[in-house]
Parts: sequence; structure tokens; C-alpha cells
Amino acid sequence: MTEKLRMYLDQIGPALERALPAPAPGDPAGQVAEAMRYSLLCGGKRVRAVLALAFCELCGGSPARALPFACAVEMVHTYSLIHDDMPCMDDDDLRRGRPANHKVYGEAMALLAGDGLLTLAFETALSFPDPAGAAQGARALAQLAGYRGMVGGQCIDLDSEGGEPALELLQAMDQGKTVALIAAACRMGCIAAGAGDRELEAAGRYAQGVGMAFQLRDDVLDVQGSAEKLGKNTGMDAARDKRNYVSLLGVEEAQRLVHAYTEEALKALADFPGDSGFLRGFALSLAGRES
Amino acid sequence: MTEKLRMYLDQIGPALERALPAPAPGDPAGQVAEAMRYSLLCGGKRVRAVLALAFCELCGGSPARALPFACAVEMVHTYSLIHDDMPCMDDDDLRRGRPANHKVYGEAMALLAGDGLLTLAFETALSFPDPAGAAQGARALAQLAGYRGMVGGQCIDLDSEGGEPALELLQAMDQGKTVALIAAACRMGCIAAGAGDRELEAAGRYAQGVGMAFQLRDDVLDVQGSAEKLGKNTGMDAARDKRNYVSLLGVEEAQRLVHAYTEEALKALADFPGDSGFLRGFALSLAGRES
Repeated sequence: MTEKLRMYLDQIGPALERALPAPAPGDPAGQVAEAMRYSLLCGGKRVRAVLALAFCELCGGSPARALPFACAVEMVHTYSLIHDDMPCMDDDDLRRGRPANHKVYGEAMALLAGDGLLTLAFETALSFPDPAGAAQGARALAQLAGYRGMVGGQCIDLDSEGGEPALELLQAMDQGKTVALIAAACRMGCIAAGAGDRELEAAGRYAQGVGMAFQLRDDVLDVQGSAEKLGKNTGMDAARDKRNYVSLLGVEEAQRLVHAYTEEALKALADFPGDSGFLRGFALSLAGRES
Repeated sequence: MTEKLRMYLDQIGPALERALPAPAPGDPAGQVAEAMRYSLLCGGKRVRAVLALAFCELCGGSPARALPFACAVEMVHTYSLIHDDMPCMDDDDLRRGRPANHKVYGEAMALLAGDGLLTLAFETALSFPDPAGAAQGARALAQLAGYRGMVGGQCIDLDSEGGEPALELLQAMDQGKTVALIAAACRMGCIAAGAGDRELEAAGRYAQGVGMAFQLRDDVLDVQGSAEKLGKNTGMDAARDKRNYVSLLGVEEAQRLVHAYTEEALKALADFPGDSGFLRGFALSLAGRES
């Protein structure tokens, strides 16, 4: 882990903890806060939060300025995992190496914990000190996380289960399920620094490359990776008869695309005058990750 | 129905339709948009949206100015009903006289439709033209709809099922489940008009009175009302062994409290210099409603 990544992570953990403090003893609604904390504060790679801080710094802002946005995008990511794992969706019982939220708190509380995290994401994004920036950042998040973005990708995923989606449909699905939220993170980082349209557009291209590479790598790891390293079950797509890039293209072609998309991401960084060394290395490390 | 209520409703319906247009044919994520539209556009009393418009007008704004906020609060209300009706929650199959969302689209799609509506609520609120007002309004919505507000009330509701909540706990539950979102509507209306803290505080007191009266009346109707008029099953609380005001206090005392809380709401209106005739009549009509 680079020193800069460590510095970013050292800011993100405490900021999440501050945004969702432990409930007071005897709080009658304390259990939903506990369930939200269980999934939000259990670690994870914090890829999206790191991207928000790094793009803020790349655009000349202090990384800490992007913390409200970084926390918000992690909350959206976490809620989507909680709802995804529920029995009516993917019915997964293992997440980040621990029992899924609904296995610990029950389905009803997991549903509420997801709803609570999604709502808290906007409250947190809107705590950004400049109101115009707060509105711009939160609106980008809403657009990219909603039914034309992340939720739309999950809808395509549901419809395709057991079916035979063409490569085009698979790409539309991953555009929503994976790229959209990574794009929100990168763009919100730029917005935190007060960057303009040119930077937002380039950040979107970086997110596109990194996001697609990330998803392709996920599919490769679902076949080749170990459950121990991943903290979740592997072979799940095959078990559910779900098509993914590996089943459509083969492992070698999928891994070749990981590198091609990563190259696109690196190209986008050239449009920023600042030092993009960290984001370059970050994209390369995601392309080669084992978990 | 008063002429003003008709005028408000005539603006709210088309604004909701514009905020969530029918998906294009062949849209791979079209089904979640359809599921969202099924529950959002099926009517309902639009109590919260009407309150937003009326408070905007009371504070000197054009009612239409509050439409983004009015639509947002209806979307939050609708998502909460969809998730509430799911089998892991209240397991209701009838809502507003039609099959519940999950009975039509399946549980997974209903879960996504709720998530999509909650996210779209913030996107819509943040389309309010003035960025500072947009941020203030959306933040109020997030605070009141989240785990310290509406979601918190639902958590208390879950924990109390089959149990014996004291009156205090019941009030905390309804504070979250009912008052919080009505307060969001009233406060967002004031914010749309650019009103100050004094108006926001008085709007909060009106919401407190109307919200508690609304919930108490709901409990009375759950015992006395007809499923046909209500468009949902009655006697559900008793069937689930859930305590409510009627089971704790009796019908007469509950109905007396409906009137007492309504009086509190009317008092709050005296703090506004504008013409509060509509909001006065609206509170009185909610107190006496049969459905």
C-alpha cells in the first residue's frame, strides 16, 4: 500500500465513524443504527471514497474537503450490497468475510438499514460546506445511483438471470452496477475542488475505464479467485447460470480487456495538469488485484 | 374538495409524471421505471405534496415553486409504502385499492423500485432552481426521512411487534413513521418560499399536530373504517397483535386526541402573517376523514 493510500484511508475511516456514531444506550431506534454500522464500518477497500479524495487533490483541493462526498458514496455502495445480498435478490450469506447483514439482523432490519444508509448518504453529501457545491455533488450522486444508473443496472441484472444477455446488455448492466458509482466518486471529488466541466468530463472517462476494468477483473476473480482472499463466495455466477464476461469471452480475452480499459483510464489522466501519479498507480493496482 | 386543493392536485399529478416519464420501448432497465411509476402515479391523497405547496404559498411564494420538493416528499412516502408492504416487513398485498408493488413485479423488483424512488426523490428535490435552497430542502428531507426520522420510526415498529410498547414508545414510533415526513413537507414548502427560521419552526409545530392527529385517526379507522373506502385491509394491527392508540387508550380517547392535536396545528398557523384558511381547513378535514 502506498503512503498516500494509507493517508486517504486514515481519513476515510474516522469520517465514516463520525457520520454514523454509535446509538445512545436505550435509543429505541438504536438497532437500525447498529445494523447500518455493521455493514458500513466493517472495512472493505473503500475504492470509491479513495477516488473522491484523490480527484479532489488532483484538481487542487485538499483531500479532506471531499470527505462528505467520499462518505456518501461509500454509504450508497454499502446499502446496495446489503439489499443485493437479501434472499429476494442474490441471497448471499457472506460479505467481506462476515455474515451478510440480513443473516445477523434479519431481513426486515437489513431492508431498513439499506434505506437508512441511502438516506444518510444524501444527508452526508449535503453537509458539504458550500451549498452550491453540496447541491451539485449530491445531484450527481442521485443521478448516477438511481434508476438510470446503479439501480437500473441491478434491474438489468435481475431480468437477465438465467437468460442469455448479449455482450451489449452485459455492458449496459455493468455501466449501471459498477461504472456509475465509480463515476459519481470521481466526479464528486472534482466538484469538491470546484473543478469545471472539462475536469468532470475527463474524470468520467477515467471512471469508465477503471469501472469496466474493475468489473471484468471481478468476473475473472469469480472464476479464478479464492473465497478466502475475496471474503465472499466464488463461482456464484456459474452457480446461478449468470452470464458474465468470462463465460462470454473466456478468461484470457476478459483479462486482456482489463488492461485495455485500464489504458483508457490512464489516458484520461493526461487531461489534468496536476500530479496524477497516485490515480495512475491506483488504476494499475485494481487491474492486477487478487481480491 | 375545495377549489384550492383541486388546483394544487392539478399541479402535483403532472409534475410527478414529468419527474418519472414512461421508459422508452426497449430500455433494458425499463421494468424498474415501470414498477416505480405503478406505485407513484396511482393516486393517493398527496397529503404531503399538498402541504409543501400550501406552506410555500403561505410564506409568499408561488405554489408551483415548491413542486420539486412536493414531488420529492411523495416519492419518499411511496418508497416507504413499497418496502413496508414487502413480505419481510408487513406482508400486505393490498395498497390504495390495488395489488401491492411486490405482488405485481415480484419482491426483487419492488425492492429496487423503492430504492429507485428514494434516490429519485433527492434528484428531484435537487432540481430546485436555487442551489442554496435546493441543498437546504434536500438536507431537511434527508434528516427527517432517515434513521433518526422515518426509518427510525419503522425500526421501532419492528421491534415492538408482538410486544407491549408503552405510550411513550408508540409516540416515538409515530414521530418517525408519520410526523417526520409531514414535517419535511411543511418545512420544504417554507424553504421553497425562502422563509426564515421562525416560519420553519411554526411549520414544524403544525406538522406535529397534523401528523399525530393523522396517525391517531389512522388507528381509529383501522378499527372502525371499511377496507373498501380505505383501499387497504383493516383490523391489521389487531391481527398482528400490534398495540396502537386505540388498543392502549380506547376509541373515544384516541378520537379526542385527534381533535386536541388538530387544535395545536391550528394554533401554529397563527404565527404566519399570510392567509392560512386553506391549511386550517386541511387540518380539520384530515381530522374527520373516513379514508
